[in-house]
Amino acid sequence: MKSYRIAVVGALGAVGREMVKMLENSSINVEYFKPLDVAEHVGELVDFRGSAWAVQEAKEGKFEDIDIALFSAGAQASKILAPIAVAEGAIVVDNSSQWRQDPTVPLVVPEVNPEALRAHQGIVANPNCSTIQMVLALKPLHDAFGIKRVVVSTYQAVSGSGMAGINELKDQTTAIALGEEVRTKTYPHQIAFNVIPQIDVFLENGYTKEEWKMVEETHKILDSAIEVSPTAVRVPVYRGHSESINLEFERPCELAEVYHALESIAGLTIVDDVGVNEYPMAIHSEGKRGVYVGRIRRDFTLRSGINMWVVSDNLLKGAALNTVQIAEKMVQMGLVGHKEQQ
Amino acid sequence: MKSYRIAVVGALGAVGREMVKMLENSSINVEYFKPLDVAEHVGELVDFRGSAWAVQEAKEGKFEDIDIALFSAGAQASKILAPIAVAEGAIVVDNSSQWRQDPTVPLVVPEVNPEALRAHQGIVANPNCSTIQMVLALKPLHDAFGIKRVVVSTYQAVSGSGMAGINELKDQTTAIALGEEVRTKTYPHQIAFNVIPQIDVFLENGYTKEEWKMVEETHKILDSAIEVSPTAVRVPVYRGHSESINLEFERPCELAEVYHALESIAGLTIVDDVGVNEYPMAIHSEGKRGVYVGRIRRDFTLRSGINMWVVSDNLLKGAALNTVQIAEKMVQMGLVGHKEQQ
Repeated sequence: MKSYRIAVVGALGAVGREMVKMLENSSINVEYFKPLDVAEHVGELVDFRGSAWAVQEAKEGKFEDIDIALFSAGAQASKILAPIAVAEGAIVVDNSSQWRQDPTVPLVVPEVNPEALRAHQGIVANPNCSTIQMVLALKPLHDAFGIKRVVVSTYQAVSGSGMAGINELKDQTTAIALGEEVRTKTYPHQIAFNVIPQIDVFLENGYTKEEWKMVEETHKILDSAIEVSPTAVRVPVYRGHSESINLEFERPCELAEVYHALESIAGLTIVDDVGVNEYPMAIHSEGKRGVYVGRIRRDFTLRSGINMWVVSDNLLKGAALNTVQIAEKMVQMGLVGHKEQQ
Repeated sequence: MKSYRIAVVGALGAVGREMVKMLENSSINVEYFKPLDVAEHVGELVDFRGSAWAVQEAKEGKFEDIDIALFSAGAQASKILAPIAVAEGAIVVDNSSQWRQDPTVPLVVPEVNPEALRAHQGIVANPNCSTIQMVLALKPLHDAFGIKRVVVSTYQAVSGSGMAGINELKDQTTAIALGEEVRTKTYPHQIAFNVIPQIDVFLENGYTKEEWKMVEETHKILDSAIEVSPTAVRVPVYRGHSESINLEFERPCELAEVYHALESIAGLTIVDDVGVNEYPMAIHSEGKRGVYVGRIRRDFTLRSGINMWVVSDNLLKGAALNTVQIAEKMVQMGLVGHKEQQ
């Protein structure tokens, strides 16, 4: 069995920590693990499969002995370091937005478009969290009924902004309980006990970057013919993105067929028993690997269409897990060479 | 100037208290104020325009000297007491869901369909909170462009469930801070740091009662030809409902015309300057009388359509204020007789 040398860049961040955990539980035979981060963290220890590995600085020269580098260090770091890692012979699976729209970079959810991996030129991009969980639920429905149009409103957790978002919600909640002044650093407005209809910056067309990612990434991963009309909203939830998704189909559908289609894709679980108030929820998704779908019901305003509610842990399937799954899939598909065996 | 004897039924509830405040600030000349509630609250004092009025029990015989009875006591109490109040000569403006779909009962948002008041037979119904703020924003757009279809996802505050909802969010937030067990009473699941895609009970068709109210009430108030596809969601916010609304129009629209139309209706304020991250939010709506609309942008997936974000204080325009405004409008329209002057 082949083994691989794997680096995690940004190993101490909110997503990076989850990447290490997901990698531990992956099917990849890891010969060598190398946690990389910014200089100030050098020497800190990261546990991986029973051993402690010292953090090294993420910089040129650190990828020469690496087969796969999982990046979760933000777009700026990725812009500089990913090409260096590729030049040094590593395959990069990048969680940032930096390379997603690059035509030479596959954008992949392994259950949805694994074949796109074959065209990789060193870098593979992990989609945005809100896109991943949505396209996983869309894929089997698109295959079965042809999706014409998607109207989606999100309910996104603060961990989408990393530790900074988590701390901001915690600090503001405490401040309000103590009657102290609420301070905002990470978000433009108070998030505790509030809802903010803005994630990331605004574009010329009136949509936010986060919203537009859902449009462009769905096109690249699934089908450029699918029309997507998104609204991305931050809610005071620590972990787990929820999405209210309205779908218009090309072809007729029966609800039984919709369930049947949704059952056919790996990684997706139906939680839909409204008789006992069961549906997917953020607090239930925390720490889970799956994408969960429920509240499935006909849209009576369309000839053929449904409403549904899709939830997933934004740090796992929405980020760390999908990144590790891409690496796993590339190993399975024989797309990763081991340098010493080359 | 005519003066009126006014009762508030359920005067000590979350909405009832706001009704008293809204009535204080109304244009209605109140000759006599009578707070009514359940027996256990009898004798408690309610301040109104500088005097303290003792709560009396809401029951038969209490409406004989009343011109207008504002009801906020739930559907069951209203079912029994509203016809009694009418029989005793009062006009009832009811905030519960009990009479809304009764064909003999006008369902009114005064800025939207005041003329419907003329057909009243004693009872007038106040629409559901999520409907009121939505139809106020839809009305001028329907007049200008003809609304064909609405896809709406809500972000509803816990005060929609009265004091019980407010206390549940507060108690659960405290329990989590202290590491104690989270208890659920009012909602089927934890609401603190979570999002629940269920408001009220489920109907046979897979929608919740709350969702179906938005369909039926929009039809009754605005136009039965408007197709509404709703998803109603509870969020951990104390006060202020937010709505992500997607609209498909019959006729072409320019964004400038959309703004112009929205500016034309009383009660609606545009808050939309994304250059400085300005848009309506729950925490800003608290205690305010208006409905606020922002994030107005073209829906590029439709020949003619927009996305927008609508926020209002669910206890004020969504409940207490609209109820008082109905009474005010009926007085202005000469629809309320003063018994001694009859």
